[in-house]
Amino acid sequence: MSDAKITQISAKDVNDWDFEADVVVAGYGIAGVSAAIEAARSGAEVLVLERSAGWGGAASMAGGFIYLGGGTPLQKALGFHDTPENMKAFMKAALGPGTDEDKIDVYCDESVDHYNWLLDAGVSFKESYWGQPGWEPPYDDGLMYSGGENAAPFCSLIPPAPRGHVPQMSTKRTGEQGGGYMLMKPLVETAEKLGVHAEYDLRVQSLVVDDAGRVVGVASRRYGKDVYAKARRGVVLAMGSFAYNEDMVRQNAPRIFGHPAASIEAHDGRAIQMGQALGAETAHMDATEVAFFCDPQLLVRGILVNARGQRYITEDTYPGRIGQATLFHQDNQAFLIIDEAAFDEGFASESATPELLLQPTWVGETTGDLEVEIGLPAGSLQSTVELYNRHAAEGSDPLLGKNPRWVKPLGTPIAAIDLRGRTGGFTLGGLRTDVDSRVLHVSGNPIPGLFAAGRCTSGVCAGGYASGTSLGDGSFFGRRAGVSAAQETNDHQVTASARRANPMPLG
Amino acid sequence: MSDAKITQISAKDVNDWDFEADVVVAGYGIAGVSAAIEAARSGAEVLVLERSAGWGGAASMAGGFIYLGGGTPLQKALGFHDTPENMKAFMKAALGPGTDEDKIDVYCDESVDHYNWLLDAGVSFKESYWGQPGWEPPYDDGLMYSGGENAAPFCSLIPPAPRGHVPQMSTKRTGEQGGGYMLMKPLVETAEKLGVHAEYDLRVQSLVVDDAGRVVGVASRRYGKDVYAKARRGVVLAMGSFAYNEDMVRQNAPRIFGHPAASIEAHDGRAIQMGQALGAETAHMDATEVAFFCDPQLLVRGILVNARGQRYITEDTYPGRIGQATLFHQDNQAFLIIDEAAFDEGFASESATPELLLQPTWVGETTGDLEVEIGLPAGSLQSTVELYNRHAAEGSDPLLGKNPRWVKPLGTPIAAIDLRGRTGGFTLGGLRTDVDSRVLHVSGNPIPGLFAAGRCTSGVCAGGYASGTSLGDGSFFGRRAGVSAAQETNDHQVTASARRANPMPLG
Repeated sequence: MSDAKITQISAKDVNDWDFEADVVVAGYGIAGVSAAIEAARSGAEVLVLERSAGWGGAASMAGGFIYLGGGTPLQKALGFHDTPENMKAFMKAALGPGTDEDKIDVYCDESVDHYNWLLDAGVSFKESYWGQPGWEPPYDDGLMYSGGENAAPFCSLIPPAPRGHVPQMSTKRTGEQGGGYMLMKPLVETAEKLGVHAEYDLRVQSLVVDDAGRVVGVASRRYGKDVYAKARRGVVLAMGSFAYNEDMVRQNAPRIFGHPAASIEAHDGRAIQMGQALGAETAHMDATEVAFFCDPQLLVRGILVNARGQRYITEDTYPGRIGQATLFHQDNQAFLIIDEAAFDEGFASESATPELLLQPTWVGETTGDLEVEIGLPAGSLQSTVELYNRHAAEGSDPLLGKNPRWVKPLGTPIAAIDLRGRTGGFTLGGLRTDVDSRVLHVSGNPIPGLFAAGRCTSGVCAGGYASGTSLGDGSFFGRRAGVSAAQETNDHQVTASARRANPMPLG
Repeated sequence: MSDAKITQISAKDVNDWDFEADVVVAGYGIAGVSAAIEAARSGAEVLVLERSAGWGGAASMAGGFIYLGGGTPLQKALGFHDTPENMKAFMKAALGPGTDEDKIDVYCDESVDHYNWLLDAGVSFKESYWGQPGWEPPYDDGLMYSGGENAAPFCSLIPPAPRGHVPQMSTKRTGEQGGGYMLMKPLVETAEKLGVHAEYDLRVQSLVVDDAGRVVGVASRRYGKDVYAKARRGVVLAMGSFAYNEDMVRQNAPRIFGHPAASIEAHDGRAIQMGQALGAETAHMDATEVAFFCDPQLLVRGILVNARGQRYITEDTYPGRIGQATLFHQDNQAFLIIDEAAFDEGFASESATPELLLQPTWVGETTGDLEVEIGLPAGSLQSTVELYNRHAAEGSDPLLGKNPRWVKPLGTPIAAIDLRGRTGGFTLGGLRTDVDSRVLHVSGNPIPGLFAAGRCTSGVCAGGYASGTSLGDGSFFGRRAGVSAAQETNDHQVTASARRANPMPLG
């Protein structure tokens, strides 16, 4: 088996199994640890195979948002009303087009339960809300808007509630041990207490399949040698996105090509390809999360224009929506127009992220001067600012519906920040799975013995994104993958013992 | 084998082969007939399996554009200068992001040869150029711009040349026997002369694979029975797009969901799934051609605005670019703003397509009235028209670069045509193939014995589109599929006899 070859391996060709467990989980990030915990609680002996030298994956590097709602204890304690129906409506409107409605329905219906599951596993959320615009809370606050629920156009259509839940950090400012680490650490400790065993420094390469087409193990490479792990019940793939597989990105999500962000190099798409080699279906391979590298404290105080000098998105929405709008729909061309007073105010904000506080690229005494400096079409920026200012004088923004809190006529001197190309992100497409995290073949049937969760699958996001949906669906459908794998038997029957052994029934 | 099951079938399980040939071609549209011709010329016995009762596929319904250039005899005769380099530059700029550059290079380098190949097979092109805006020539003219080469932004970057070649029709106005039919008819006659045999009313369902993983035939359904066809050298998939597979569209190209157009129901994605069942890679599954249902004779004479009352694309470009810009980037929201005089002029144009000549939805004495009627944000349309008119008075359009021929201030009374949702199209993504039309496995290696071309593959279009690229790459890479399949042998060697028998060497 060479490193480059991605194909299924016949169980007949495996002479010696190096490891054996009921459930083999590939990848020890958020989806992997959640699967491991639930598989173990379902009575399975669990082995996790991890490529790097330690657990964590992209999750432990992340800010730590988990997208939860429908009335979590944290939302309630902080005075926010939310329902599963409002949460569903928002997710279907904001994360599409083409969302998997069944996945969103179950995700929302069981979101409060999932919050409690995290608490039970030792994750804690500080009872405080962060209401400033920004990518994430700069301190250890536990709740923040993370998807644009409170901005146009959604705020007037669906009752908004903040759903970005952040595990409490050990340091005041986000440090090395950010929210993602504070999520992963208690989950891994929980898995270890349940007897989950992990092997590190081992690259999972291919699936091992028996004559009936059932996945019965995985083949890996470790220190230049082939290593085989047998899975008596099932294999869970939880190996992350394909953001770092240049060929796959070029073929599927070319707009993000060359600009991976908020991801790790281990996200090489291998799990997706391993599934595809068995005929697995994929979904929404073009979808990507898009970071926008400018601080929201500046964005909300200016107007964002495209290469035609036109506004295109309300500046006070979730910055990930601004990133997607810019990369997908404006050819990655954006300029922030902001006057001196607004710039100074935003720059001084304590909630800004220092490296996202950009200096003006051009400054003009008038909008006309600035337009020429930037090189925008004649009259375009002047026309845009004139219309904006006319309404702003009355505190309104009929064009895009920015919150009156941030609407103020632009004065002079006026500056522009060049935001062309300041985007990056990770991929959201992957293996198509059902709500029980079974990997689906192109025939529509599950592939026996194969389960997946996290960013190697297409989850709750089809096109749009909200911060926390990756740790959210990775943990949620990771749990389901663990339960499903533990219940899988060779005769496709759920055994009574597996049912009895499951202390937290799926549902 | 059930109708719904898409999986590979083991050759060991096939007791009786109903048909046998060197090369089996699935689908008798443009890619299939081109593959059949070249396979036969390469010395192979060829069998074509077609789902419907006759040859033709979507091709025979099409207007018939074939995207050719680089200096074809027709381009030269009509006084247009073109080079393979200009053609490559345009296609890479207009059909991306993420185009397959190897495919575009070979397609352009051999485009003149491909033109001659079509001529040799009996396709004829009338030596006349149609220079009016429109979807296709209303008469039997042989050449027209079909991709926006002569419009902004391309016209000032890459020397433009028209590349939409239309086979001469038998009727003056496009009738039942349009350009697509006049392309298919001589090609099928050529295939028949070469001894190609066709079987009809037979749905190809699955690939048959031997123990070594080589494709050795196909399984089909005919009148409720399983039918097996053995391919001694190779199988060519040429079964069209997945525009009519609702599930696949929802999972991959949700923006076009519910709006298939310029396609046929046989385009059910089966060939793609058959390849995927064997581990084939796919590419650009989100890409779609998008028709825009409004006559260009109206479009060029007005201004097109989005739901924010802003212009977003030059109105005189290829209407398929307008369709894509509207569906992909403006949420399918568009309004054509046109004054009475311009409307009357466009409406009276002899080159308009009657069913695309829409009546105004709203009329206003002033732009302000019209803005209210449509329900656009306050001041937005007035601001747009004011800026447009100011420059139009001088015959220029700095915002989008519309050709001065069509730039004229909008007067009153002024009308708007509601173009929201007036889009439809077909899918462009599919199996990933190399320049020899070999279907690639996710491992990057070709799947032995399997070839594909046409809209079940990802061709020269990754994101954008130009009319004629589907018949163009379908025929071009169809030919290559035929040659490759005929040369395929069980020991992966090209036989000397196959080489000698090929009267038209590849490349």
